[in-house]
Amino acid sequence: MNSKVVIFYLGKILQIVSAFLALPIFMGLFYGEFVHVLPFFITVAIFLALGFAMSHPFRGTDRKLGNKEGLAIVGLSWVTISLIGALPFVFDGCIPNYVDALFETVSGFTTTGATILTDIESLPRCMLFWRSFTHWLGGMGILVFILAILPGTDGSTYHLFKFESPGPQVGKLASKVRHTATILYLIYLAMTLLQFFLLLCGGIGFFHSAVIAMGTAGTGGFAATGLSIGEFDNLYVEIVVTVFMFLFSLNFNLYYLIILRHVKVALMDEEFHFYCGYVVAATLAIAVNLIGTYGNFAEALRYASFTVVSLTSSTGFSTTDFSQWPQFSQTILMLCMAFGACAGSTGGGLKASRVLVLIKAGKAQLYRVLRPHGVQVVRMNGKAFGEENVTGVVRYFLVYAMLFVVAVVLLSLDGFDFLTNVTSVLTCINNDGPGLGQIVGPYGSFAGFSPFGKILLSVMMLAGRLELFPLLLLFLPSTWKKNY
Amino acid sequence: MNSKVVIFYLGKILQIVSAFLALPIFMGLFYGEFVHVLPFFITVAIFLALGFAMSHPFRGTDRKLGNKEGLAIVGLSWVTISLIGALPFVFDGCIPNYVDALFETVSGFTTTGATILTDIESLPRCMLFWRSFTHWLGGMGILVFILAILPGTDGSTYHLFKFESPGPQVGKLASKVRHTATILYLIYLAMTLLQFFLLLCGGIGFFHSAVIAMGTAGTGGFAATGLSIGEFDNLYVEIVVTVFMFLFSLNFNLYYLIILRHVKVALMDEEFHFYCGYVVAATLAIAVNLIGTYGNFAEALRYASFTVVSLTSSTGFSTTDFSQWPQFSQTILMLCMAFGACAGSTGGGLKASRVLVLIKAGKAQLYRVLRPHGVQVVRMNGKAFGEENVTGVVRYFLVYAMLFVVAVVLLSLDGFDFLTNVTSVLTCINNDGPGLGQIVGPYGSFAGFSPFGKILLSVMMLAGRLELFPLLLLFLPSTWKKNY
Repeated sequence: MNSKVVIFYLGKILQIVSAFLALPIFMGLFYGEFVHVLPFFITVAIFLALGFAMSHPFRGTDRKLGNKEGLAIVGLSWVTISLIGALPFVFDGCIPNYVDALFETVSGFTTTGATILTDIESLPRCMLFWRSFTHWLGGMGILVFILAILPGTDGSTYHLFKFESPGPQVGKLASKVRHTATILYLIYLAMTLLQFFLLLCGGIGFFHSAVIAMGTAGTGGFAATGLSIGEFDNLYVEIVVTVFMFLFSLNFNLYYLIILRHVKVALMDEEFHFYCGYVVAATLAIAVNLIGTYGNFAEALRYASFTVVSLTSSTGFSTTDFSQWPQFSQTILMLCMAFGACAGSTGGGLKASRVLVLIKAGKAQLYRVLRPHGVQVVRMNGKAFGEENVTGVVRYFLVYAMLFVVAVVLLSLDGFDFLTNVTSVLTCINNDGPGLGQIVGPYGSFAGFSPFGKILLSVMMLAGRLELFPLLLLFLPSTWKKNY
Repeated sequence: MNSKVVIFYLGKILQIVSAFLALPIFMGLFYGEFVHVLPFFITVAIFLALGFAMSHPFRGTDRKLGNKEGLAIVGLSWVTISLIGALPFVFDGCIPNYVDALFETVSGFTTTGATILTDIESLPRCMLFWRSFTHWLGGMGILVFILAILPGTDGSTYHLFKFESPGPQVGKLASKVRHTATILYLIYLAMTLLQFFLLLCGGIGFFHSAVIAMGTAGTGGFAATGLSIGEFDNLYVEIVVTVFMFLFSLNFNLYYLIILRHVKVALMDEEFHFYCGYVVAATLAIAVNLIGTYGNFAEALRYASFTVVSLTSSTGFSTTDFSQWPQFSQTILMLCMAFGACAGSTGGGLKASRVLVLIKAGKAQLYRVLRPHGVQVVRMNGKAFGEENVTGVVRYFLVYAMLFVVAVVLLSLDGFDFLTNVTSVLTCINNDGPGLGQIVGPYGSFAGFSPFGKILLSVMMLAGRLELFPLLLLFLPSTWKKNY
């Protein structure tokens, strides 16, 4: 590990990130919340000073990045940006406790959307804007954004791109990382703006349209209302949000293929089919299960479709308190959370393509026991997926499951019930937002957990967003050995 | 698949199994329960008639068994023996509902110990004997028993032995399967008798000593008392049961090594160390957590040690209602259930050696991400475990996890709470016995589930006991194809 280059890049990243605070500052001035703008200026100063202090001493260092350095930079920058990004809430006093502010900020950047707030509407608008803007930045990737706007040494930055992008395999859309990042962000921006205008047409105003569009685009789930999307009780808004939650949970490569007029290739994608399959299946299963709850199938379908898309896309918006639904529906929802969105989207969870590979690997194992000397090939989109890739996906699941179990055990120290513990970890590691049960349900809050519990869940959110390894490896001593 | 040889062996097995009913018949006559003995005679007749009808037409067939035939015979014989073994309860009327009787019988043979009975003491003693004797037979293996007493074609029967023995790898103690089976059963019998005599010394009488010894040996957990071992409130009995639950949950190869005076080799076994490690760690963690519940550490340690050994060994006896313990203790207990006993023991669960391989594989995966071109070798007992074996264990876990999730989703249709559903599946698939929560806790019963739920859980018990594949493959069409 070359620590110098890691610190150098980290410092550079912090300096650039300070620019992100321009938006909440602008919104604060726009809404006349002058006193609430000051905390952002102080935070900008901290970002710049710390960034300079870190990068300046190593400005002469060789800037080549290897695999290890890429991992470390991605892991450390997400942790550091969250640590500093939480400060405006504390300086302002709207979230006086630092651990709470950190939880909220991590939840924002990781596009989880779990909140410790109990009275959301009481916050200044510029603070709510910052909170939702973190979703937008975290969705496509903070470093991917920086790669898109900065001229970089391409061979080196690929490692940053690789470890921040979600999914088992990274698709480079263009030959250069920078071009790929730019294409992704342009598609992302265009879709966000489109949703913003469609929401404006729904009559919920500039502020809420912007907040919800950013929350949808990042598949985050923070709203500026206590009852989330349910607050508006507006079918048009629900439909727009449902459609865009779905669109943002698809692999962005598909949009690029469509732009290049390879529509047929995009529509034939196996992950896309599988994802649509479980979204539809879960929606129908829950809708039928809910007929008794809502009196008729149409109403049941309305709530079921919104909730399923919200949880598979890992957004976490809600239109009803689904923690009151029958046990079968709740169990299906947990599965939706775990499966998650498509790889290469802004969504979280295991990712549809991984789940598909896992199912195929499980099936292949049955055949292997039946015919020990036969050859079992796992295929994706008709092509052999490669034994090593299958092994990688299966062991990813193994590490995911282990982390999950360890977190549930540790969280149980807080003394809440099993459903609360399981769904809290589930919703955090999959970057969903709401859990089930009384405390962490869609209209609940994570405020009740101890500081230990909140930090544990913050680590889970980061681990989930970065697909485990960039975060977990920070805790492995070998990562820090000089010649390893 | 050669169906003829499968049906032939199945028929032979059913005929031999009928002899097992001699014990409950003898006990019934001994206790003067003459009217309750009749159901056993009818069942013997059914075993013999069906067995003859199946084996006689194919007596001339080539008796060579392949891998597929071995799988099918093991899966089908466990299902069939359970289906017929449930009949005495129905004929007698002590469990009038056939699905209930089947659940109880499967729970017996698979050494789970989960019960649908709510008033255990009301059953005739011969019925309770049969119920506990199924534990003893199922513990070391019904087919292993048959292999031990029958002269067989050795090369063929290895496939039966392999698929019925628990653990990732089968250790043949002797060069011949028959000798291995005999050695195992002699050790098993000797230890059972030793425990029986030690319990007799505790003053709980012949009947309860026999029932508890059989329940401990098979790591089953059926007792003939409503409050399980807690009924006696006898520290001596608790200690004897704790020690023997532990002994029966160790790999029987260790005892064979000790008999051969390779004591040092036995004590250096890595699985043994790991197993002891988590038993002690879980006991201490829970004991500390329970100080508040029981007032002092000694008392807390008494209940914690018994319960932890009972659940890791997958026995399921209880001395207290641990479903009332604090959340942290309960979560650790769930982990104990999932980890389970050592491979090659009579216990269930994932098995200590598998868990150890999983942890090593997870760690190796971290290093693999850190150093993509490095070589990561997983070692067991100092020797390379082999990449293919590691893959086999990890994919076993994958199939286990998938089956677990599917079962929890299906069981949620019964409408019970999440904790009940999760721990019911957990306790059944790991052959433990009690779950957590109000309904299926140690002093609860599985009577409340629907027939669908009971059959689902019976399938889980069988799948867990046979280590998934012999049962799951019965549902795979390819298993039944002629030339596959």
